[in-house]
Amino acid sequence: MRDYVNEPHEIEKKSFEIIGRELGGIKFPEETDSIVKRVIHTTADFEYARLIEFKNNAVARGLNALKAGKHIYADTGMIKAAVNNRALAMQHIDVLNFVHDDDVIAEAKKRGVTRSTVAMEKAVNREDVSIFAIGNAPTALYRLIDLIKDGAPKPDLIVGAPIGFVGAAESKAALDELDPYDIPYIRINGRKGGSPVVGAILNAMLYKLGRDW
Amino acid sequence: MRDYVNEPHEIEKKSFEIIGRELGGIKFPEETDSIVKRVIHTTADFEYARLIEFKNNAVARGLNALKAGKHIYADTGMIKAAVNNRALAMQHIDVLNFVHDDDVIAEAKKRGVTRSTVAMEKAVNREDVSIFAIGNAPTALYRLIDLIKDGAPKPDLIVGAPIGFVGAAESKAALDELDPYDIPYIRINGRKGGSPVVGAILNAMLYKLGRDW
Repeated sequence: MRDYVNEPHEIEKKSFEIIGRELGGIKFPEETDSIVKRVIHTTADFEYARLIEFKNNAVARGLNALKAGKHIYADTGMIKAAVNNRALAMQHIDVLNFVHDDDVIAEAKKRGVTRSTVAMEKAVNREDVSIFAIGNAPTALYRLIDLIKDGAPKPDLIVGAPIGFVGAAESKAALDELDPYDIPYIRINGRKGGSPVVGAILNAMLYKLGRDW
Repeated sequence: MRDYVNEPHEIEKKSFEIIGRELGGIKFPEETDSIVKRVIHTTADFEYARLIEFKNNAVARGLNALKAGKHIYADTGMIKAAVNNRALAMQHIDVLNFVHDDDVIAEAKKRGVTRSTVAMEKAVNREDVSIFAIGNAPTALYRLIDLIKDGAPKPDLIVGAPIGFVGAAESKAALDELDPYDIPYIRINGRKGGSPVVGAILNAMLYKLGRDW
């Protein structure tokens, strides 16, 4: 028999111990600590400790939205796959994605814009959605920023984490344009990010509301 | 209007140019070049250039299996979400995952092992599956290695990329035990890896067989 840890909770516990140890003297505020560590846990990449940024009381305000059962709009199907279904069900929350909807595809083609752009417009118009989680498309994040500047309802949380070499870092930097609007957001600065990182952030927040497994 | 690149092919082309430039003098063999670069493209993490390892003619032999329409067994739903559906459809390939199957759940509980372990046993018994892609569960990879040593049919390709702090690196190192069996594999050494990395490797290989978009 091989000698390895088989039990998911045990693996998670040991992993967080290792992460805490290897972070050495680096300490995070209590409300962000489990979020930063879960991102490192998901990526095995300690660089996220300095890339992640929390603005405008993002954790507390995001948690209130999750407690209220507000749905999450995600720009990729991978985010939906990454968020824990049991944790979502406990709060009666859905993760929505509209980029494959027929009406979105048709309108994007007609207007010559990305599906992510049109899908974001559709999401912003939903009263039951107030959390926006973007792991891939700079155009989704740009569109969200512009819609808010144009008077769209203020989100309770934006997770801004498009990954990539072209436009991703710039789209996240553009969140600065929302400074006058007091929008809570969690951002991954630079090129890194992606759907698993977004999933880790959302899971860490959901787990703060309770975990029955 | 914001000034950004909107067209996915253009973004991809520019991204690969940036990656090539920032890799500087580092060159990869022609058959692995697009795979390594797509992993970097997906993760925005150049460390993968030195973490990825190709053994036993993995690319050519894996491509032959893909061309023959062999299905892919993946240990996570996120891998299924990460692999390009159009590219799979062109080769009539499915990505399968059994960890949520009722029979797998029941048997794992009965035997006190992980679902990933039992799901891997189910996958190995399928004649139409010869590619095994593991992005999360060390137990899935360990079970696959042991089944092969016990006489299971030889896979055409293993993508060994569990990510994490407990058991992941060790499970990938255990692929060394397959040295006498001439099994083609692509491995991410160390802690890093994960479903998006596995998706990037599989997509890069599928794109070598043609891309109609």
